[in-house]
Amino acid sequence: MTYRAPITDILLSLNHGAGLAAAVKAGHYGDFDGDVTAAVLEEAGKFASDVLAPLNRVGDEHGIKLDAGKVTTAPGWPDAYQRWTAAGWNAVSGPEAFGGQGLPLAINAACTEIWSASNVAFGLCPLLTLSAIEALDAHGSEELKKIYLEKLVTGEWTGTMQLTEPNAGSDVGALRTRAEKQSDGTYRIKGTKIFITYGEHDMTDNIVHFVLARLPYAPAGTKGISLFLIPKFLVNADRSLGARNDIYASGVEHKLGMHASPTCTMTMGDQGGAIGYLIGEENQGMRCMFTMMNQARLGVGLEGVGVADRAYQQALAYAQERRQGKAVGKKGDGMDPIIVHPDVKRMLMQMRGMTAAARSICYATAVALDVSVRAKDAKVRADAAARGALLTPIAKAFSTDIGNEVAYLGVQVHGGMGFIEETGAAQHYRDARITAIYEGTNGIQSIDLVTRKLGANGGASVWTLLDELSATVKQVEASNDPAFGTTGAKLRDALGALERTSKWLLERLAAAPNDALAGATPYLRLFGVTLGGCLLAGEALAAKANGETEPQRYLALARFFAENIAVQATSLEKTVTDSAEAVNGADAVLLG
Amino acid sequence: MTYRAPITDILLSLNHGAGLAAAVKAGHYGDFDGDVTAAVLEEAGKFASDVLAPLNRVGDEHGIKLDAGKVTTAPGWPDAYQRWTAAGWNAVSGPEAFGGQGLPLAINAACTEIWSASNVAFGLCPLLTLSAIEALDAHGSEELKKIYLEKLVTGEWTGTMQLTEPNAGSDVGALRTRAEKQSDGTYRIKGTKIFITYGEHDMTDNIVHFVLARLPYAPAGTKGISLFLIPKFLVNADRSLGARNDIYASGVEHKLGMHASPTCTMTMGDQGGAIGYLIGEENQGMRCMFTMMNQARLGVGLEGVGVADRAYQQALAYAQERRQGKAVGKKGDGMDPIIVHPDVKRMLMQMRGMTAAARSICYATAVALDVSVRAKDAKVRADAAARGALLTPIAKAFSTDIGNEVAYLGVQVHGGMGFIEETGAAQHYRDARITAIYEGTNGIQSIDLVTRKLGANGGASVWTLLDELSATVKQVEASNDPAFGTTGAKLRDALGALERTSKWLLERLAAAPNDALAGATPYLRLFGVTLGGCLLAGEALAAKANGETEPQRYLALARFFAENIAVQATSLEKTVTDSAEAVNGADAVLLG
Repeated sequence: MTYRAPITDILLSLNHGAGLAAAVKAGHYGDFDGDVTAAVLEEAGKFASDVLAPLNRVGDEHGIKLDAGKVTTAPGWPDAYQRWTAAGWNAVSGPEAFGGQGLPLAINAACTEIWSASNVAFGLCPLLTLSAIEALDAHGSEELKKIYLEKLVTGEWTGTMQLTEPNAGSDVGALRTRAEKQSDGTYRIKGTKIFITYGEHDMTDNIVHFVLARLPYAPAGTKGISLFLIPKFLVNADRSLGARNDIYASGVEHKLGMHASPTCTMTMGDQGGAIGYLIGEENQGMRCMFTMMNQARLGVGLEGVGVADRAYQQALAYAQERRQGKAVGKKGDGMDPIIVHPDVKRMLMQMRGMTAAARSICYATAVALDVSVRAKDAKVRADAAARGALLTPIAKAFSTDIGNEVAYLGVQVHGGMGFIEETGAAQHYRDARITAIYEGTNGIQSIDLVTRKLGANGGASVWTLLDELSATVKQVEASNDPAFGTTGAKLRDALGALERTSKWLLERLAAAPNDALAGATPYLRLFGVTLGGCLLAGEALAAKANGETEPQRYLALARFFAENIAVQATSLEKTVTDSAEAVNGADAVLLG
Repeated sequence: MTYRAPITDILLSLNHGAGLAAAVKAGHYGDFDGDVTAAVLEEAGKFASDVLAPLNRVGDEHGIKLDAGKVTTAPGWPDAYQRWTAAGWNAVSGPEAFGGQGLPLAINAACTEIWSASNVAFGLCPLLTLSAIEALDAHGSEELKKIYLEKLVTGEWTGTMQLTEPNAGSDVGALRTRAEKQSDGTYRIKGTKIFITYGEHDMTDNIVHFVLARLPYAPAGTKGISLFLIPKFLVNADRSLGARNDIYASGVEHKLGMHASPTCTMTMGDQGGAIGYLIGEENQGMRCMFTMMNQARLGVGLEGVGVADRAYQQALAYAQERRQGKAVGKKGDGMDPIIVHPDVKRMLMQMRGMTAAARSICYATAVALDVSVRAKDAKVRADAAARGALLTPIAKAFSTDIGNEVAYLGVQVHGGMGFIEETGAAQHYRDARITAIYEGTNGIQSIDLVTRKLGANGGASVWTLLDELSATVKQVEASNDPAFGTTGAKLRDALGALERTSKWLLERLAAAPNDALAGATPYLRLFGVTLGGCLLAGEALAAKANGETEPQRYLALARFFAENIAVQATSLEKTVTDSAEAVNGADAVLLG
């Protein structure tokens, strides 16, 4: 169960599928010229293979232990975390003013895939710290930044995001944790949060919690929520650690997967209330949370890509080694490796194709988010922000759906061995499951796509993207390369389906919102397979144009995706446009 | 996590979707008039709810223990098994001459769904005994039957099926276990079998193992395999239990799911070899195994249906109870149950629709297998046998795919709670995973469908079935019932896709077998969604015609399935017919 980061694939995807090279060339990345990209990723791959991958199974088997409010992580984990921060991996895209390397989010996205592939439960910890950094950097006071930001950027301390409560999950506005202002300007927070990832652990001296709470007399719902920074240990004036704050892990969950990542119930107020510091303004907590949601959601999408790639690598190795049966027409004794069987080839190609498509969608999202803050031109920034906003729910939901589906196929390729825990394929399958749920369930992502992103500017973001994808398809058609097979025609059909469906949804959204909502999930899938297919085709064209050593593999993969997967688009169109009445008439069935 | 057998749905599916009522009316079931069906199923439902369902979680948590060759099952399991046999549930479809009730397989199929829904790891044990009964009844000597058959029919002893070895899984012909004939006519068997379900346990006094082994000088491959009956305890002349036979559980697997079902490594020969009795003739073991494969594969398909229904019931209950957010347009305070949200409705309808389709396909298979042995007319029997053979791989693979997909959605409906083991949704997800693998992986089923079943008689079985389905669709169209929406048109499209794809496969099968094999899995899916959609439409028509109290729910479900799921057929057609080259050209990608 080794892992090797697929650097060649990643670079092609990043530079060409996601458009990093073009954006750099256009000057949208400022000083960053892309020269270090390959070297950074090679090093990340080494660290992942050497340090993180060997701990993946250990973490799953040992899990974590909670005793008297203290969490012990699996053997080797605290040490690996020290090596991680010492090597500077936590700081890749952090702000330079606070100890970060200031590299683009796109580079960090590729790194996040690599961490997730090697050890998704480990990678989840810095992923949340990253969100905390973003919130603090954007909305925190200078004083708070001085004390906490560098610690978070370097990873000396980790961050948590605390939204969920027993009655406030997808509906975060229902939360009840209370905050009261003190005469010294700090706040006292009391309440209980659940499902808090890495809410308590033994890998760092301190943990910086970012907690949503409600002030007395705050308006109801999401308009009355404020964001607070609550350190596990208070920090003294001399920056040394002070008193233990009144925020404790009172329970940990027994989960299907991600065993090594502590999922805590956090209790505040047993000793009078946790001391917290306001981030941003009172009642503006949701705005602060939204700031960092794009990045967090993209991060979870990359977890999907990472787990998928790990599952693929393991299944591919097994299929080359395991011998059962013979290739069609083969005579003589002995069995062939199962990879000779077309049904196994199909599974592996599906795994690889879907992983590659999800990867490129995630990276494209990262490039858009980068350009939205790095480009000089305001119009370029605004367009990129719209693109990033549009792609984020797709990156999150499509990639994590794919993570689950690929891990499922990974078990299947292993046959009976796949069901045995020692094989390791089942761990990927279990670990992947939560990615479709947290940071907003994939249903929530689909609704976000349809209700907020698609209609944000009358669909302009979608039409612009479709035009770009259409140009790629034209190039495929113009290439006349027989290795593309019917890729051009298949993608053309898919684009047509996506365009018609988008228009239908925009129209229904105004006229009968429940019709649009009924089709949200299949629409996101339709978007994902179409976009993914076009990006892979674009990468194949780039591989040809750049004289890559093996453009055939990218041509063959793009072709497989178009002919095998992107062909779902026309059926998905029907599911969206023809079945809203059936969905919304469900009560006759469900409540009968 | 209660379970209530959906008797109304089951009866409609059995009698009308699967055609039991018509077959009984046509006289193909002999004396059986169907009067007892409802009463038997009601009782099965009660037993499942009262005795089996409460042990499902216990079994998952406790698992089993192996100590010095002895397996201890979870608390309450041996007692539940005694109650099970005492109530006669093991004997439902067993031969009357040996203590069985001689009820149709179709009735037992509905029972199997119910056992699997309430406790799939428990139901797996009698499922294997059933296969053992079938093999012994069809191929065993009268002497062996006298000693063993009644014990197996009543369930006083359980049976195992032992095919798999470390190097012989899907390729069973590669097995190495050796058998040598003794002067007394018995055989001595030495070797190791893996993945043996309920190979050892503490629920009965004796276990009857059915073991595939190879005689010295037997031909290579599947032509040199013989089947042996190997009792755990030998049976004395007076029918009392004698010496312990040389077959022991030397290990148990640590699995993703089905924790309560012991999956054993069985070792024979540490004490000179296990004493075995030949079933059928030497070197005819594969024929004997094939006899029972239809039923065993159907049984696993029903596990898929059962787990799916359990997952659905749990998700439905949660969606009615859990409150988050508000319905579109609703004003005022308070949250609505999440079932008001279209995306949740869609998930639940998908769960229910897919479960219902898989159920009807499995029951239709059971009816065909019944008629193939019960009908008076030889032509009717032969046609039914062909139908049963055709449907079996679809029943197995489609239903277990659906079991996994529905359990996945079951977790999703629960949101974050779904990932927590205590919720129970994750158990269904874990348990379901093996059903797509054992009794022939779903890939093997697809290959069986394409290479053996589709072409068995030049496609005649398929064309006959398509004609029947087409007649159903005509009735839908003729009904002009607006509640059907576009069901007729959608099913018509699906039937067209299935017919064209079947023809394409038959042609390729002869010309380029690897092209046909590349499309096997999507073809089985295409077959499943089309057949399932038509069966559900037929049930809705029957519900209307019979003046069922609530035909609307069946109309609405059939409509949802046609408009939401059966629409995949045309895309699946493209995947099969347009992507063989991409699949078979995979080496450029996979081995690059």
